[in-house]
Amino acid sequence: MMTQSAAISVGKRDFLDMADLDPAQLARLLTLAARLKRGEVTHKSALAQKVLAMVFLDPSLRTRTSFEVAMFLHGGHAVVLEPGRTSWAWETRKDVVMDGTTVEHIAEAARVLGRYADAVALRAFPRGGAWDDERQDRIIHDFASYCEKPVINLESVRRHPCQGLADALTLQERLVSPRGRRCVLSWAYHPKPLPTAVPASAAIAAASLGMNLHIAHPPGYELDPDDLTTIARVASGAGGSVSTGHKLDEAIDGADVVYVKSWGALRHFGRPAEEAELRAAYRDWRMTEARSHKLSDDGFVMHCLPVRRNIEIDAAVLDGPRSAVVDEAENRLHVQRALLLELLGDLGR
Amino acid sequence: MMTQSAAISVGKRDFLDMADLDPAQLARLLTLAARLKRGEVTHKSALAQKVLAMVFLDPSLRTRTSFEVAMFLHGGHAVVLEPGRTSWAWETRKDVVMDGTTVEHIAEAARVLGRYADAVALRAFPRGGAWDDERQDRIIHDFASYCEKPVINLESVRRHPCQGLADALTLQERLVSPRGRRCVLSWAYHPKPLPTAVPASAAIAAASLGMNLHIAHPPGYELDPDDLTTIARVASGAGGSVSTGHKLDEAIDGADVVYVKSWGALRHFGRPAEEAELRAAYRDWRMTEARSHKLSDDGFVMHCLPVRRNIEIDAAVLDGPRSAVVDEAENRLHVQRALLLELLGDLGR
Amino acid sequence: MMTQSAAISVGKRDFLDMADLDPAQLARLLTLAARLKRGEVTHKSALAQKVLAMVFLDPSLRTRTSFEVAMFLHGGHAVVLEPGRTSWAWETRKDVVMDGTTVEHIAEAARVLGRYADAVALRAFPRGGAWDDERQDRIIHDFASYCEKPVINLESVRRHPCQGLADALTLQERLVSPRGRRCVLSWAYHPKPLPTAVPASAAIAAASLGMNLHIAHPPGYELDPDDLTTIARVASGAGGSVSTGHKLDEAIDGADVVYVKSWGALRHFGRPAEEAELRAAYRDWRMTEARSHKLSDDGFVMHCLPVRRNIEIDAAVLDGPRSAVVDEAENRLHVQRALLLELLGDLGR
Repeated sequence: MMTQSAAISVGKRDFLDMADLDPAQLARLLTLAARLKRGEVTHKSALAQKVLAMVFLDPSLRTRTSFEVAMFLHGGHAVVLEPGRTSWAWETRKDVVMDGTTVEHIAEAARVLGRYADAVALRAFPRGGAWDDERQDRIIHDFASYCEKPVINLESVRRHPCQGLADALTLQERLVSPRGRRCVLSWAYHPKPLPTAVPASAAIAAASLGMNLHIAHPPGYELDPDDLTTIARVASGAGGSVSTGHKLDEAIDGADVVYVKSWGALRHFGRPAEEAELRAAYRDWRMTEARSHKLSDDGFVMHCLPVRRNIEIDAAVLDGPRSAVVDEAENRLHVQRALLLELLGDLGR
Repeated sequence: MMTQSAAISVGKRDFLDMADLDPAQLARLLTLAARLKRGEVTHKSALAQKVLAMVFLDPSLRTRTSFEVAMFLHGGHAVVLEPGRTSWAWETRKDVVMDGTTVEHIAEAARVLGRYADAVALRAFPRGGAWDDERQDRIIHDFASYCEKPVINLESVRRHPCQGLADALTLQERLVSPRGRRCVLSWAYHPKPLPTAVPASAAIAAASLGMNLHIAHPPGYELDPDDLTTIARVASGAGGSVSTGHKLDEAIDGADVVYVKSWGALRHFGRPAEEAELRAAYRDWRMTEARSHKLSDDGFVMHCLPVRRNIEIDAAVLDGPRSAVVDEAENRLHVQRALLLELLGDLGR
Repeated sequence: MMTQSAAISVGKRDFLDMADLDPAQLARLLTLAARLKRGEVTHKSALAQKVLAMVFLDPSLRTRTSFEVAMFLHGGHAVVLEPGRTSWAWETRKDVVMDGTTVEHIAEAARVLGRYADAVALRAFPRGGAWDDERQDRIIHDFASYCEKPVINLESVRRHPCQGLADALTLQERLVSPRGRRCVLSWAYHPKPLPTAVPASAAIAAASLGMNLHIAHPPGYELDPDDLTTIARVASGAGGSVSTGHKLDEAIDGADVVYVKSWGALRHFGRPAEEAELRAAYRDWRMTEARSHKLSDDGFVMHCLPVRRNIEIDAAVLDGPRSAVVDEAENRLHVQRALLLELLGDLGR
């Protein structure tokens, strides 16, 4: 199979990490997304006879709806699968003896779905292990290695690249020329310790636009060192910068945009009770209306959604003029239309 | 957001309650539905590039299938979401601090889905509260206020308007000119206390056709006074009448149609054990074969389905010539095609 | 209803069992499937305006995805329903008083879905009863009798005819002229006692191609006598033969194809703890790499999937050159496209 897969994989273009896109590819994607959004191009039949199989090992509202709509708007079709719920429970460990409760190995699932669909998309959150193990992000990469067709990452342990693309489009729309503008990625309190895929991807998005990015979080909430290295590499390549700090109010003072997001402390990853003790001290890390007024005059607030109202961001901010969260969610649709057209589409149609 | 939403909502046409339709609108919808059913018009591309997002907080067979098919038959697409099952668990309370198990507030969900879809449909049954609270039917109305696109009610606490439209089409098909004919809405025993959305909507449907409607139920099973007022208003506007009573056999004697439906006692709403004691005395409120013979010669039996066989209606009636329940369910498809074409369609196609 | 249903059912073509196809029908289906797979014909609009309603009382990956894609590739649409999960819990017993937890009887469900769709497909595994009862395969046959439209069996207690068609196409592809070639259906150990629908259908598939079929299983794992009679009838009609035995290694020696599949002992059916004692003695019934080398030079291994890696078949075999399991799964798509085109399609388009 390895040779077979290797052979067939020649030219196979997975989309697992926004950091894999070179600046020209990113610019082309964002330009196409913006044109699709404005209706300047429609490509109504560009995905005719094309199928996207979407697999959700975890819940989704925006991702599932926006991809399903994206396929439809261009004449294609998305199949939505939820292993363990509407299809067989999946086994993700390599070299396992399947004598337990899992019924189907991702090796077979990835290979079979690659025969039914033109691209396969997978959402696979962390499974509850320690960070040293989870950080390898094995499921999405194993799945992509087994599948003969392009694989799209719908949020894995480490990355949410489609969210990153939507974040980039939103920053570009609102700031016109984001290079050199101040973006703060602000940690927020949340009742649960969330993964770091979204903050890492949002940081990559801001960095890829050459913004001056500051990541503010309480002590102990550092992102993975490899992610910080990647973010810094992308930033320098685009003429921007990255800094980190522990002071929320100083950071957001005069910021052009604050991306609010919660995540768990990596050294306690997979041990929520232990992590909760650390997190409890930082309930004040919240985007209040008062804080929202500290942004620049046209400063705005982003969040990937779903958001805990009055915990991460106050209702007055979410419902107010500085909120970009709904536009940001809408942009999921447009960047994914562009991504699917680039991956699978006949742009002559 | 309020202003923005208000602005965008100008001309936004929600379909939350059949009683909001004026007689001309209802007549037009039913005429289009009948023509679509007979194949006199097809409008195969009238919903091209149109998307309906359907959200089910509660189960569905007919509603989900008939809307999904309706969109397809006219070139559109329906996305089906089940929060808490295949997407995030929704918070519906206003001004809540989301520190618990719900992950997404309907404010964000309604706004985001309104960006992905051309119309958004929601099913939201009662959540287990007392009637004084549930009767406000907050979820569907809040959702509609948050959403920038037309919102369709797939059954809320108080109304099931798409069922009402199907009931109206079925009555018109079978009776040709229903005005002045006798329709009995008959309470039936059921192992559980059900909401009143369907009986209220069926009564509005019969009333809107100018029928002489009699609502028969045991003492304590009165519909909400506001609903009775609405039903009476609609009836008088259409030249019909409404009466209520506690005698099943007298009521159905010679009736042209008996709409069998179970519902719970409102003053015990949300307290099923307490309600069950009252209900237990009325197991005999059942459409038996003997009772079906008491209808007029061409009299028939309706029910919205799902039906408890041999509890609400005997198998011999459901499987016999007087049953209109399958035609009634089929008509869900045709009235919803008409509704979607009116709301979203290009009738030139 | 009986007369009405009878009337409408004239010419209704259900697909419940591959053994119901005559040799000419099977040959035509397989030829069309092969041509669709090779792209020699596309029939992109042959299912325009056609709807397939698929009901899964049990989980699915291949069946659900391949049918949904099949409908889409020809301009049609598949609706996927999961009673008890996303729609009402179904009652399948006849003459029942529905005073319990089931909400909808299959009589209504089958009739209503037949009004919304052009064909209705149902998956209904055994419900946990003893074989004497389960072997009647009541649910699929009752459902078909209630439904006015063609009903497709997506795997019932006794049959999985779409899998059988895919198996037949796979055998024909790989062997070109399968008549007289040696096919071994080999029982395998599995942590759970599985139904016999797949082995019975695979045997019918091999028999229908005139292969010399040997069914190898431990003592106590005989297939239902009626199934063996059917398999023998089909085999003799096609110029093949069937034998059974208890010796795995002898059977596979020089075989052209080994179809690996696990199933439970019928005399313990519905009593898993009791059956497990018998099964425990046969953990060695597994397709190891060593055994795979005992096949003929171009011999190959089949399995319907999902497969328990390193329990039914070793990973080295599944990932190696002798595995036909992914091609076999892909063929589900092509045979079902052919089936749907034959049942519902306009082959002029």
